[in-house]
Amino acid sequence: MADLVELSDPDDPRLADYRDLRDVELRKSLEAEHGLFLAEGAKVVRRAVEAGYDARSFLMAPRWVEGLDDVLARSAGPCFVLSEALIEQVTGFHVHRGALASLHRRPLPGVEEVLAGARSVLVLEDLVDHTNVGAVFRSGAALGFDAVLLAPRCADPLYRRSIKVGMGAVFTTPWTRIPDWYGALPDLSRRGFTTVALTLSDDSVPIEEAVAGVDRLALVLGSEGHGLSSRWEDSADRRAIIPMRAGIDSLNVAAASAVACYAAARR
Amino acid sequence: MADLVELSDPDDPRLADYRDLRDVELRKSLEAEHGLFLAEGAKVVRRAVEAGYDARSFLMAPRWVEGLDDVLARSAGPCFVLSEALIEQVTGFHVHRGALASLHRRPLPGVEEVLAGARSVLVLEDLVDHTNVGAVFRSGAALGFDAVLLAPRCADPLYRRSIKVGMGAVFTTPWTRIPDWYGALPDLSRRGFTTVALTLSDDSVPIEEAVAGVDRLALVLGSEGHGLSSRWEDSADRRAIIPMRAGIDSLNVAAASAVACYAAARR
Repeated sequence: MADLVELSDPDDPRLADYRDLRDVELRKSLEAEHGLFLAEGAKVVRRAVEAGYDARSFLMAPRWVEGLDDVLARSAGPCFVLSEALIEQVTGFHVHRGALASLHRRPLPGVEEVLAGARSVLVLEDLVDHTNVGAVFRSGAALGFDAVLLAPRCADPLYRRSIKVGMGAVFTTPWTRIPDWYGALPDLSRRGFTTVALTLSDDSVPIEEAVAGVDRLALVLGSEGHGLSSRWEDSADRRAIIPMRAGIDSLNVAAASAVACYAAARR
Repeated sequence: MADLVELSDPDDPRLADYRDLRDVELRKSLEAEHGLFLAEGAKVVRRAVEAGYDARSFLMAPRWVEGLDDVLARSAGPCFVLSEALIEQVTGFHVHRGALASLHRRPLPGVEEVLAGARSVLVLEDLVDHTNVGAVFRSGAALGFDAVLLAPRCADPLYRRSIKVGMGAVFTTPWTRIPDWYGALPDLSRRGFTTVALTLSDDSVPIEEAVAGVDRLALVLGSEGHGLSSRWEDSADRRAIIPMRAGIDSLNVAAASAVACYAAARR
């Protein structure tokens, strides 16, 4: 059972996990160093704990405590209770739906384990935007993808904003990082997946055609700005596009991934 | 030809159009009152002017002037030139890709005019998030939709953030507001459109099935939180869903609209 600890000093050192949440660079180093991540919002906090993540602590305004009492009951870490105004002072912004938790990261599983039994897998190269990473996890989960693999430099799916946009899909979808960027796609091919890269290439075919008849599918997405690296583009089994009207900027990666997942789910 | 006016005082009254860009409520009332809207980023500024919007003025750091000189040459309003640090003081944030323009809104066209020749139309009820409105315009344009109709309370597609997320699709896609919320969908039916509402309803069918064989299509999307009003849900010709895995939160409206547009484009 999490102890309820009422605090009135926003500088209390026990609140260190929750400071300056808008400072992305600071947060990235702090969270990596301490092996933690933050969940924001009562629903997402609940999903993190229900998915088995251990809470270091919670931080919430009084009115959120009751609705989360079963979540607190199964957690060891303390629950710091502050007024909403003080929480805003600590975190640097107005917290959406009042509750936060700081949770322990877990060791990432191996690729083998993540792929076990999976028929449809998303593979993200170097997405930089946490919002997009969250959106891709959410669309993939909704549209029937079983797992997600991330290149070494892809943005963190356990960053607060990724989790929030993804509505916690990162807690329920098996995922890990690929250790070897260079050999990633040939390795998937050897494991029996057909790798289909979404990219504007001379030999790209419409996505529906690219996934037709494919059993185990690895759908490969590149970064927001420059798309896939040439290594990944070249080493994929197939290249695919979403057919679009001429002269229009392409879909953003969140929209493109939703469309591609939909097309793939119907193969 | 826009006069270049170098300013060094961030409080200069000529910069009034550009103040406090992060204050959404202030901006909404200021922009409505003055009949203006803001475009942000060199590419989007260019697209606004090329689409025929008249600039009241421009605001940019020195290094953006040369790349936009043809745009400035065809505009009458002045171009205020400030350092990037001073621009940040005026606007309240770091301006992405350095250039801003304040442009005159134009009277909205009638529904008749917007629908002329259109085969695929998006109809948005009460979306509240400018990011989503921009994303829907962009996906619609990319995937072959010809026009957009907005309910009276839908968020503004000419708000700075809508425009930016939509990459200026709002400049090239015919759109207007529907004057009569209550009768909107029956009116579209009378005009020869089949109205298909994306909504979780007892009689919803998969989107692909709902659009099959439809000639003139009006695809109807509801707000982020509560979806469509019951009036719109009930008065649509057909109700449709995107088939999803059980137990997963639905797609967000930007992802759902991309998928629905894709399915509709292939009807």
